[in-house]
Amino acid sequence: MNIDTLIHARWIIPVAPDNRVLEDYSIAVQGGRILELLPTEEARDKYAPAHEHELTRHALIPGLINAHTHAGMSLLRGLADDLPLMTWLNDHIWPAEKRWVNEEFVADGTRLAIAEMIRGGTTCFNDMYFFPDVTARVASAAGMRAVVGLILIDFPSAWAGDADEYLHRGIRVHDDFRGNTLITTAFAPHAPYSVSDAPLERVRTLADELEIPIHMHVHETAHEVTEAEQRDGRRPLRRLGELGLLSSSLTAVHMTQLTEDEIGALAESGASVVHCPESNLKLASGFCPVTRLLAAGVNVALGTDGAASNNDLDMFSEMRTAALLAKGLSADPGSVPAATALRMATLNGAMALGIADQTGSLEAGKAADIVAVDLGGVETQPLYHPVSQLVYATGRDRVSDVWVAGRQLLNGRELTTLDREKILARTADWNHRIADVDELLEFS
Amino acid sequence: MNIDTLIHARWIIPVAPDNRVLEDYSIAVQGGRILELLPTEEARDKYAPAHEHELTRHALIPGLINAHTHAGMSLLRGLADDLPLMTWLNDHIWPAEKRWVNEEFVADGTRLAIAEMIRGGTTCFNDMYFFPDVTARVASAAGMRAVVGLILIDFPSAWAGDADEYLHRGIRVHDDFRGNTLITTAFAPHAPYSVSDAPLERVRTLADELEIPIHMHVHETAHEVTEAEQRDGRRPLRRLGELGLLSSSLTAVHMTQLTEDEIGALAESGASVVHCPESNLKLASGFCPVTRLLAAGVNVALGTDGAASNNDLDMFSEMRTAALLAKGLSADPGSVPAATALRMATLNGAMALGIADQTGSLEAGKAADIVAVDLGGVETQPLYHPVSQLVYATGRDRVSDVWVAGRQLLNGRELTTLDREKILARTADWNHRIADVDELLEFS
Repeated sequence: MNIDTLIHARWIIPVAPDNRVLEDYSIAVQGGRILELLPTEEARDKYAPAHEHELTRHALIPGLINAHTHAGMSLLRGLADDLPLMTWLNDHIWPAEKRWVNEEFVADGTRLAIAEMIRGGTTCFNDMYFFPDVTARVASAAGMRAVVGLILIDFPSAWAGDADEYLHRGIRVHDDFRGNTLITTAFAPHAPYSVSDAPLERVRTLADELEIPIHMHVHETAHEVTEAEQRDGRRPLRRLGELGLLSSSLTAVHMTQLTEDEIGALAESGASVVHCPESNLKLASGFCPVTRLLAAGVNVALGTDGAASNNDLDMFSEMRTAALLAKGLSADPGSVPAATALRMATLNGAMALGIADQTGSLEAGKAADIVAVDLGGVETQPLYHPVSQLVYATGRDRVSDVWVAGRQLLNGRELTTLDREKILARTADWNHRIADVDELLEFS
Repeated sequence: MNIDTLIHARWIIPVAPDNRVLEDYSIAVQGGRILELLPTEEARDKYAPAHEHELTRHALIPGLINAHTHAGMSLLRGLADDLPLMTWLNDHIWPAEKRWVNEEFVADGTRLAIAEMIRGGTTCFNDMYFFPDVTARVASAAGMRAVVGLILIDFPSAWAGDADEYLHRGIRVHDDFRGNTLITTAFAPHAPYSVSDAPLERVRTLADELEIPIHMHVHETAHEVTEAEQRDGRRPLRRLGELGLLSSSLTAVHMTQLTEDEIGALAESGASVVHCPESNLKLASGFCPVTRLLAAGVNVALGTDGAASNNDLDMFSEMRTAALLAKGLSADPGSVPAATALRMATLNGAMALGIADQTGSLEAGKAADIVAVDLGGVETQPLYHPVSQLVYATGRDRVSDVWVAGRQLLNGRELTTLDREKILARTADWNHRIADVDELLEFS
């Protein structure tokens, strides 16, 4: 039978069903979708592929899903470090964004972010930033899967002047990309402290109508919760609940402050939590109680947050940090074992973003979002358990090949749809402009 | 002036003096030592080098010092995961070691470890394992700097039958490598719970006579401390103090359990602490109070621990984890800023190992232990602050070149003194033998 692509691998870890490692298996791909997983010996007899890949030292895993990032912010990577969230935002990031963010900034920053993500085995990202139309266009052109956040915030930006305009422009992005198989959308109200009740109520209604998720920073720091209690008499999650936002449509990011009752309410609502351990550590924002959330049955996905607060978009590192940190905090080395970390970075992400029918695991019928990891180097030998190796010993630099919807975006670590040299040149240009102004500010 | 080597770099971060980033500087190397650091423009006029390197996108840093590892254990990488320390040791690691550890195992495991360390920018490791003579021989042959631990433990092993034999054989290793410029030694009593008073008292006397450090696991878990209190009526650190071991010779590893009084006593004694954040997280051993130790003036170095409990020997990852975790635990994003993390991984390590006159910073007169990191890739651009980039955005895969005592051990990511293919073949052989027996045990 003639097919597009046949990939033979030493191991395949499909993530669903759980805890399965297939040895000497192959994936058959046709029309951008996974046709089947079968033993390599059978695959060679059965299929005549246009493209065939022999990955004898490699594990194939579902493409990683970065469930929370701000791709455009990659141009601000490392601009300010070792500061608390509100100082970092108020004194560094927001002024820089006010000065620099426009369509060109978002296009260049997003292209840089996608190059980094593809090279690191990420095949889908859940974004929240200004100019989501630009993000969608750049991702689609690169062949990258993305959930583009229709941002909403109480203060004006280069993208929109007020809530009406944010929503209006957001819905236009949703409509413009409706037919695109790689791009879906989510409403992305920034945070409880930066979006008022009225626009949040409209988001709830519109999200129900359009059947898209709501992606929001919630309970990122203790300060956020305390400040809301003082001003509003309620914790932010309770306010969101009373506004009707606590539902299976909600993808709540960070969630470092959670009572047992709140964990119960999250589980009951079917909302998802996106854990961003490295950003939370770096900004000293607090600890998301991942072990308790998972025990309560809450869907927990993983995100890097933006490169300005991480300072990378490395989902391998994020998996590892999530697995290690959960053990330390719960005093239980069995918490978040390797397979759970991998599931959080793949299928749980797809569930949080409402695209688990399309991606998140290597199963027949889903899109061929596939990552090959070379486990043959000195850094990953010997090898007793491939899943352990992927989470505890491998880095993103071992990702050799990446496919999204069957299209190969990384070939032997080379990007196929993005011009690396051009991205570096554009980034260098922004680097000089931003650094020069930043230096002026420091000495003013 | 004719010299051996001249390295031109975009940035040089010497670590001492503190907080200095030199731009467009060069390092002149002669006879294995750093002759001087000077502006590239001057260097080109002044020196006629036999070897010249143009590293236009790179930062040069002092070689990283892995202040606690068990190199030979690399052959057990990923054999058992997600288990508590004592189960992991008693049911998995110690039986595997009993079955497998011999001179050949230590030689092959150490060669694998050194290959991984060199490729990751580590130029010196502080080891604790059986057959330290083999470790010393393998490291010296590879051109790698090492502090070889003269191990001491109350139970017999393939290396020695009792305390007398451990000490006797250890001292012979010390004598055999006395003239070697790359190899120094330390006494390495395993832990308070595994070494009795009498041999510890002899270690103290011998360490004073030979003027070498004492490298020991101390207060790794709460269980260790509680159990000692019940059995002995004292916390282990107090017992070590009463045995005369709490001094500037002591390099105490892990230290997850520390009272304010103990931190004060450590500071007063001049002892060093080796923080192994990833191993402590993975085994859920507890948290070393790094922020408080540093504030008290204690010298804190960094180690990976063995690859069986980490599961890598990646000092870049360890720097990053140390910097992030300290911020999270202290709720202070200013804790362990990037420059401090880099210092912990370099100069503080050299101080802990008693070799700060030889290595740990890029200063005239010290050995030329130098690491070049390519910061030109999409993962590390834009670049506002090189030190931030090195700790928060770079990975070990960006290490391009490594020199130890002026000899180039890594050239464009290729090992020059070790045979990569042979190491992989030997590792594969051990992998099959160990996995087969492990499988038998699981089904028995």
